[in-house]
Amino acid sequence: MPESTRIALGVSYNGRAYEGWQSQLGGQTVQDKLEHALTRFGAVDPIKTLCAGRTDSGVHGLMQVVHFDTRLDRDENAWVRGTNRYLPPDIAIQWARQVDSRFHARGSARSRRYAYVLLESPVRPSVDAGQVGWVFRPLALEPMAQAAQMLVGEHDFSSFRAAQCQAHSPVKHLLRAEVARRGAYWRFEFEASAFLHHMIRNIMGCLITIGTGSQPPEWMAEVLQARSRDVAAPTFSPDGLYFLGPVYDPVWGLPERTPAFDWLP
Amino acid sequence: MPESTRIALGVSYNGRAYEGWQSQLGGQTVQDKLEHALTRFGAVDPIKTLCAGRTDSGVHGLMQVVHFDTRLDRDENAWVRGTNRYLPPDIAIQWARQVDSRFHARGSARSRRYAYVLLESPVRPSVDAGQVGWVFRPLALEPMAQAAQMLVGEHDFSSFRAAQCQAHSPVKHLLRAEVARRGAYWRFEFEASAFLHHMIRNIMGCLITIGTGSQPPEWMAEVLQARSRDVAAPTFSPDGLYFLGPVYDPVWGLPERTPAFDWLP
Repeated sequence: MPESTRIALGVSYNGRAYEGWQSQLGGQTVQDKLEHALTRFGAVDPIKTLCAGRTDSGVHGLMQVVHFDTRLDRDENAWVRGTNRYLPPDIAIQWARQVDSRFHARGSARSRRYAYVLLESPVRPSVDAGQVGWVFRPLALEPMAQAAQMLVGEHDFSSFRAAQCQAHSPVKHLLRAEVARRGAYWRFEFEASAFLHHMIRNIMGCLITIGTGSQPPEWMAEVLQARSRDVAAPTFSPDGLYFLGPVYDPVWGLPERTPAFDWLP
Repeated sequence: MPESTRIALGVSYNGRAYEGWQSQLGGQTVQDKLEHALTRFGAVDPIKTLCAGRTDSGVHGLMQVVHFDTRLDRDENAWVRGTNRYLPPDIAIQWARQVDSRFHARGSARSRRYAYVLLESPVRPSVDAGQVGWVFRPLALEPMAQAAQMLVGEHDFSSFRAAQCQAHSPVKHLLRAEVARRGAYWRFEFEASAFLHHMIRNIMGCLITIGTGSQPPEWMAEVLQARSRDVAAPTFSPDGLYFLGPVYDPVWGLPERTPAFDWLP
């Protein structure tokens, strides 16, 4: 038997049809589809993957990263092309790299990046249904940008944490929180050491409350300091949430983005 | 009974789930869904619509325009909000206007505009599946832009006409043909007096043949002059084709775009 090698994959998917990333008995998750396709391509043992960041039902991925160990000897392009034949049209492996066995998709990630895309319009989404969040009231940039800045830094994010969150600690380091507009679409981008369950969707609920003028920017600091889910806005829709991917040390030699990044406004 | 009034609607839709625009017995077309919703909202007589430009199976609409006559007295916002409640998530009325009875969604259109969005990537679409065409070979801008210009003007477009096309004449006036790139995505935009069946998808097949270097730009003029479908490239995928909408005289007072326009790269 040849020695086992570790393979890392970059995966893009539209999460609309799936019950999130993580494998479930029903088999309707992105991980289930990916592992099924990898196993069909490999045609030997079942392949099990470990990912950089699990995504919820309806959330999309522009560059999820997974790793797995295999004794199969295939070149990197063969992993991409061979496996994509067995994946549904809304999931595709973008790249494959043979990596050092010390690389770990979750453990080696220095930070994670997410984007939230929002349609501001009197009418709900249609062409873009399931791919954007929606607000019908006009939003103001400056109050949202101010409020987002109040979250940057190391904080206890308990106010933005789902009840079912399994993280060891609510303390995370938010490195970046940016807001930009392009026509009728708003794009929010977040980078953190790690995120709590529903953290971005809960932050989005608060930012929109501020953007529509229902609360002043300073309210964000109050919510953060309360360390209680009770004071924050309701969890916002998953539709416009995109996992942009993990950030690794360049030493691992992995791509930083996929062509799918250019799809978003 | 009140007098009949004419209503014009702007409609956006993602065509992926539908068998094109035009009503069919099976009821799985955009027109069927729209008329069903209008009739449910109106709750009296069945409402039949007439559109500015029929779209094929899988083709999307950013601003299809339809008109119909009704004796119902509802304000413009009520038509939008009331009908959208009965439409599936991937179809939405963007605006409604009461118009002069001489307005005709098809007959009053001075021209029509379409966009084609193309992903250039070694890997097929995923996040954007069904919403973009795909080429895995690199494209060159200048040859495609040159070739597109050769089509501008009044020409016999028989080389780009589907066998089942029902237009009276193959002579159409192409007013604009533009190519632009944004990251991994290409956007082509066309405006013409009217389009033949499959005309843009056939032109796209030829532009891509030129963009990948398989033919020189001058080949487009040869194809045009041949007036025969046999010499052109195969019909390209409907996935990336968007009906941007008709152009009317400003005298009718209709909106020129919808927020959905900003969704495309």
